[in-house]
Amino acid sequence: MNPATEHSAAERPAPERKEPTFLLTEKCVADKSELARRFIETRARLNANVDKANNFLVKRYYNIDHNTYLEGALPAKTKELMGLVASACLRCDDCIFYHAIQAYRLGVPRAEQEESLNVALVVGGSIVIPHLRRAYELLEELYR
Amino acid sequence: MNPATEHSAAERPAPERKEPTFLLTEKCVADKSELARRFIETRARLNANVDKANNFLVKRYYNIDHNTYLEGALPAKTKELMGLVASACLRCDDCIFYHAIQAYRLGVPRAEQEESLNVALVVGGSIVIPHLRRAYELLEELYR
Amino acid sequence: MNPATEHSAAERPAPERKEPTFLLTEKCVADKSELARRFIETRARLNANVDKANNFLVKRYYNIDHNTYLEGALPAKTKELMGLVASACLRCDDCIFYHAIQAYRLGVPRAEQEESLNVALVVGGSIVIPHLRRAYELLEELYR
Amino acid sequence: MNPATEHSAAERPAPERKEPTFLLTEKCVADKSELARRFIETRARLNANVDKANNFLVKRYYNIDHNTYLEGALPAKTKELMGLVASACLRCDDCIFYHAIQAYRLGVPRAEQEESLNVALVVGGSIVIPHLRRAYELLEELYR
Amino acid sequence: MNPATEHSAAERPAPERKEPTFLLTEKCVADKSELARRFIETRARLNANVDKANNFLVKRYYNIDHNTYLEGALPAKTKELMGLVASACLRCDDCIFYHAIQAYRLGVPRAEQEESLNVALVVGGSIVIPHLRRAYELLEELYR
Amino acid sequence: MNPATEHSAAERPAPERKEPTFLLTEKCVADKSELARRFIETRARLNANVDKANNFLVKRYYNIDHNTYLEGALPAKTKELMGLVASACLRCDDCIFYHAIQAYRLGVPRAEQEESLNVALVVGGSIVIPHLRRAYELLEELYR
Repeated sequence: MNPATEHSAAERPAPERKEPTFLLTEKCVADKSELARRFIETRARLNANVDKANNFLVKRYYNIDHNTYLEGALPAKTKELMGLVASACLRCDDCIFYHAIQAYRLGVPRAEQEESLNVALVVGGSIVIPHLRRAYELLEELYR
Repeated sequence: MNPATEHSAAERPAPERKEPTFLLTEKCVADKSELARRFIETRARLNANVDKANNFLVKRYYNIDHNTYLEGALPAKTKELMGLVASACLRCDDCIFYHAIQAYRLGVPRAEQEESLNVALVVGGSIVIPHLRRAYELLEELYR
Repeated sequence: MNPATEHSAAERPAPERKEPTFLLTEKCVADKSELARRFIETRARLNANVDKANNFLVKRYYNIDHNTYLEGALPAKTKELMGLVASACLRCDDCIFYHAIQAYRLGVPRAEQEESLNVALVVGGSIVIPHLRRAYELLEELYR
Repeated sequence: MNPATEHSAAERPAPERKEPTFLLTEKCVADKSELARRFIETRARLNANVDKANNFLVKRYYNIDHNTYLEGALPAKTKELMGLVASACLRCDDCIFYHAIQAYRLGVPRAEQEESLNVALVVGGSIVIPHLRRAYELLEELYR
Repeated sequence: MNPATEHSAAERPAPERKEPTFLLTEKCVADKSELARRFIETRARLNANVDKANNFLVKRYYNIDHNTYLEGALPAKTKELMGLVASACLRCDDCIFYHAIQAYRLGVPRAEQEESLNVALVVGGSIVIPHLRRAYELLEELYR
Repeated sequence: MNPATEHSAAERPAPERKEPTFLLTEKCVADKSELARRFIETRARLNANVDKANNFLVKRYYNIDHNTYLEGALPAKTKELMGLVASACLRCDDCIFYHAIQAYRLGVPRAEQEESLNVALVVGGSIVIPHLRRAYELLEELYR
């Protein structure tokens, strides 16, 4: 509580945020995996719908969401994998696909995706297994 | 699907698992933070109770849980932070405290704990905020 | 705690409950939107199944559920939108479709549906987004 | 789909529902376990509050809830343990305490309570563990 | 899909957002209800902690959260009650207290708070009941 | 806490675990119900994928999951129905189908499946209803 403490929160500089460097485009991923292609196309079609509605708060949310996964104190790779963990333990197939593809585009190896899913499995329980199965089907197509 | 593919899952060696190196004991953490001390003591007292019951399946679960956070394809640090993300987005104060303390004992800086909590906040929504507040109270005591 | 207090709970008359007036039949909605039509038909087919089973407790639950959304202290419109918020933050596509269609049939304008979904998005987090996308697709068909 | 089928749903008689026979009163349980006593007293105090409000729908819900755990096609004991499983995997301490005490009052042995909690643990994951610990503390007091 | 349609999303003006008018300060509420006072004070103390950390993304989230409940297409009152529904069905006591107090400060009568909680109860099930009990204790203090 | 107590946890023998006796093979069930057949085939195809990945922790989890539903202090039948309750209140269609089919293969009558689903409905709320509808469709095919 001493304001003069060397490592106090008030004095920590905010970590620099910047866009991560993707090794692959969404197009490349869609060409490699049929599951990824269908996910990416459906998402684009539905997002076009949301964009058209031009809702102020939704746009703000999309913006804050984008900012969450930039390079910062933690690498973008790690945060995409954290997004994967959160998605898997909250059991959202679309979100799992989104973060698994983003992590793949950033060059994350399959073993790291699997270990991330393991954290979600053990924290979230067997109810996560159906989502894990579908995630492995995607990983199989991406990393073959 | 080609079994001869160089990177096929069947041929990937399982990542080596080993115990992480903690920089601090639980005792050190308890001495520094009153919130941590109370958490650690209550947890130990209640776990003694569970141990005494000697339930086969519970012991198996504790064992698999322990194995999840070892050094492997991903560093133990990263997986403790993933445990923190999962705990925060599933909104379990005890689990948040457990993983935040484990990450602290492994030398994770505060900014990485905050970014992990940010992933949980954005994925899990404002319902996470009361847990975030209590997590920040702990971080304040740990990193002062 | 003073039993003589003017506004004490014991003396409040129960709000009168009555059926809301729908401006549109389910048939009209199904004719306008293909997504609504498929939802309404599948729901009717599956409910016929449940009705046939004639389970006492399920019938009681359907009855209490029906009573929840009648005109009362709050207008039926508002409660259908609250049902939408609850459905979206608990992430149930069928429930979202049900309440969005009910609200539409009661004459709720699109902007009110969007603001309700915003509450669910901000409380429930980005995990709500895939459901929001599908809800907007329905809104697009209903309100065009 | 053949309405003449011997076992068709339409012809199944509804299982008879009747009140279960408790071997112990709440008072007995409260006398044996301090944790149970505090739970029972707080619950009674807060329920008095709810009763006073005399809300039509809440009363209906309490009534349907009561009907769920009567003797029927399944014994009341089994359904109280199912209530325990549901409570533990949805992670509600109050609900866990309620159903563990009800099961105890019906003469369920500790080993059956533990196996029920195991189903919740494996389905619901490590996030259930803090609740399991508190449940074991109660079981320890009840079954000593 | 016809861009010239009168009510198309593209042409709808964004609803004006403005701060709601509170009839009561937090101080007034704290003076009336001991439960509210304790909640408000703890929240303020923990938020001071979060503010001190000065985390960019957390500040953005607090800001978007604030914007969600302004007057807009729906009255602020309705959206606070929707926040209450979301909080109750996601089972967060702090969030329930927050929105119940905000709604009270905006002049919402008790019967509307109860009907909102009923939506959460019926959508969210008996697992909501322990939270409902605590909410009614607060309502009892606020509306006496 | 007296270690000499007759019924102390330390002295309770662990309940014997053994494989349950299924009255029907998965093949029989698939032949009877088209819904079951599609579920069983998809699950087998996706599990083959997971098996191929040969992930140490996933295999451990599948193993502990298998052990949970063996004959023990509670009959396997009861625990499959508890798995059904947990699956329904956590709202996982695949898990509901899995446990409903397992219970059917063990000779559980339809009325017991319905009462189990009722516990999940009342604990979990109307958000469970869409899953209940799909479960009843399966029950209709299995028990005709």
